Amino acid sequence: MTQPQQPQSLYDRSVVIDALNISNWNSPSVYDSLHNGGVTAINATIAVWENYRECMDNLVGWMHRFERDDRLLQAKSVRDILSAKEEGKVGVVLGWQNASPIENDLNRLAMFYALGVRVIQLTYNERNLLGNGCYERSDDGLSNFGVDAVKEINRLGILIDLSHVGDRTTLEAADLSEHPVAATHANARGFFGHVRNKTDDALKLIAEKGGVIGANAFPPFMPNGFQSTLDDYIDAIDDLVERVGIDHVGIGTDFTQDQPKAFFDWLFSQQGTKLQNRPVRYPDPLIHPEGIETPDKFSNIAVRLSQRGYGNDDITKVLGGNWLRLFSQVWGG
Amino acid sequence: MTQPQQPQSLYDRSVVIDALNISNWNSPSVYDSLHNGGVTAINATIAVWENYRECMDNLVGWMHRFERDDRLLQAKSVRDILSAKEEGKVGVVLGWQNASPIENDLNRLAMFYALGVRVIQLTYNERNLLGNGCYERSDDGLSNFGVDAVKEINRLGILIDLSHVGDRTTLEAADLSEHPVAATHANARGFFGHVRNKTDDALKLIAEKGGVIGANAFPPFMPNGFQSTLDDYIDAIDDLVERVGIDHVGIGTDFTQDQPKAFFDWLFSQQGTKLQNRPVRYPDPLIHPEGIETPDKFSNIAVRLSQRGYGNDDITKVLGGNWLRLFSQVWGG
Repeated sequence: MTQPQQPQSLYDRSVVIDALNISNWNSPSVYDSLHNGGVTAINATIAVWENYRECMDNLVGWMHRFERDDRLLQAKSVRDILSAKEEGKVGVVLGWQNASPIENDLNRLAMFYALGVRVIQLTYNERNLLGNGCYERSDDGLSNFGVDAVKEINRLGILIDLSHVGDRTTLEAADLSEHPVAATHANARGFFGHVRNKTDDALKLIAEKGGVIGANAFPPFMPNGFQSTLDDYIDAIDDLVERVGIDHVGIGTDFTQDQPKAFFDWLFSQQGTKLQNRPVRYPDPLIHPEGIETPDKFSNIAVRLSQRGYGNDDITKVLGGNWLRLFSQVWGG
Repeated sequence: MTQPQQPQSLYDRSVVIDALNISNWNSPSVYDSLHNGGVTAINATIAVWENYRECMDNLVGWMHRFERDDRLLQAKSVRDILSAKEEGKVGVVLGWQNASPIENDLNRLAMFYALGVRVIQLTYNERNLLGNGCYERSDDGLSNFGVDAVKEINRLGILIDLSHVGDRTTLEAADLSEHPVAATHANARGFFGHVRNKTDDALKLIAEKGGVIGANAFPPFMPNGFQSTLDDYIDAIDDLVERVGIDHVGIGTDFTQDQPKAFFDWLFSQQGTKLQNRPVRYPDPLIHPEGIETPDKFSNIAVRLSQRGYGNDDITKVLGGNWLRLFSQVWGG
């Protein structure tokens, strides 16, 4: 048995991983908040609707950031994440929420791997060449190209993310993957009936294969919507722990810090180009739940889990331990 | 009653339209053959797997061809096709076999229309953002993007082609389209059981909506394969006429004149990039059936239809009259 610790002290010693952050990377306060919050590593989204060239441009932007801001460290491995913890830096794992940057060529995956992409969500909301997203009118699962994509992503050792993926494509991909897979930022549909939350079948399959689900703090995916507070988010975590067990739950806040309304309009435009497809009635600015508004409030999660009776080992698992184990399994090294 | 005519004389007076030609556009003999054969107009494929930029490059190539070769005339309207007939030129309708050039942006359709694209096949063999092709492992029909694509293609007045499209996507698109649609180059699956030939449901729906099916002379899609002759092709025409009626059948030879083996390997590579996905065991060079090897043999179709007892009016419809009616309905003017 480990010695009981104060939650803040436990937090300070833990590897803290946020498996999904899609903030405004041009906003300096984003990095202040991550650093002040003691976040060890994030999965930073660098592609949603981007094509090959646009994603390359985003990568160039990150190369500059890594050079300029010595609070940041590009994390391509578990070793890098542990270095970030040791050095008090924020490890940034570059990740995609859509396979759109490879366009029609799976050979490009190896190049993006070489540049550090370590998390790939197969589809984002709509259809792509691999399979369907969760907002599509139907879902016939993986395509021929999608089957080969899963195999190539497996071969390279990139983590497959199924958060925004359609139900059938989710099950087929989780089933096909040789490595454990993740839903980096999704709650249970049984917790709140939203198409962006995952079915019990999907959650069960992900957990059975050794994967991890990141509880999502984005207000629309919780029962109290934009009235949600930290306690609602802890409910989401708690619910996932009950469904899949403590070894398969992590954090995936879905922070959208400093993103303007135009960003959300773009996210919800069909294929990233259609205007006013699905009018979004989000508050502007969009604020995460009270108590977990921004990454500098991250330690509140540890405090509240402790108050709910979670032991130190379990808190450590949820804060980042489970992600670290999964990354190690999928990325190797 | 029109006066009975000799088939060759009838042919010479007819508007002759080949609704699908995907020859090697860099080979001069292709244009010699079309001109010598008295072909009034072809639907010339300028995109199969091409993306936005690659298709623009192909368009640039055609602009040069139209300037250099005064036997050619770009056909953007029925009036242009009639001018080609009058002037003894070959009218070239620029068409796509895949919606890939628009990538993720439906707004690009208006630009391609302005440049003269008048036929768009929604998908080619595999999955794209609109729907599925006929070789996919499954087919859930049109996507949200695909539904909007059909509406925009309708609005612009471009002909929808469903030849290589998956069964469900075919039915959904034909059903949704406000204008008649085509299968520019496909036979009946009941004539020969190949996934590239269309089901009776699809043929019936296309005909009911006033569309046209172009009988395909590509050897693998006929019962005798590479042993096929002109008579087999006439059988394919005859079979379609029996299934959907004389007003809904045209010619879509699928000529691949002077295309090298590498071209077919590319066609059958998954999404145009995978090597040796579906090894093609085609003869090299690939020759169309005896008697209809190249466009200069086109009048043989009229001769043989006449021998089979087709009347002049019916021969004229099959040679191009039905396509002309359909183009007029869809393109307007």
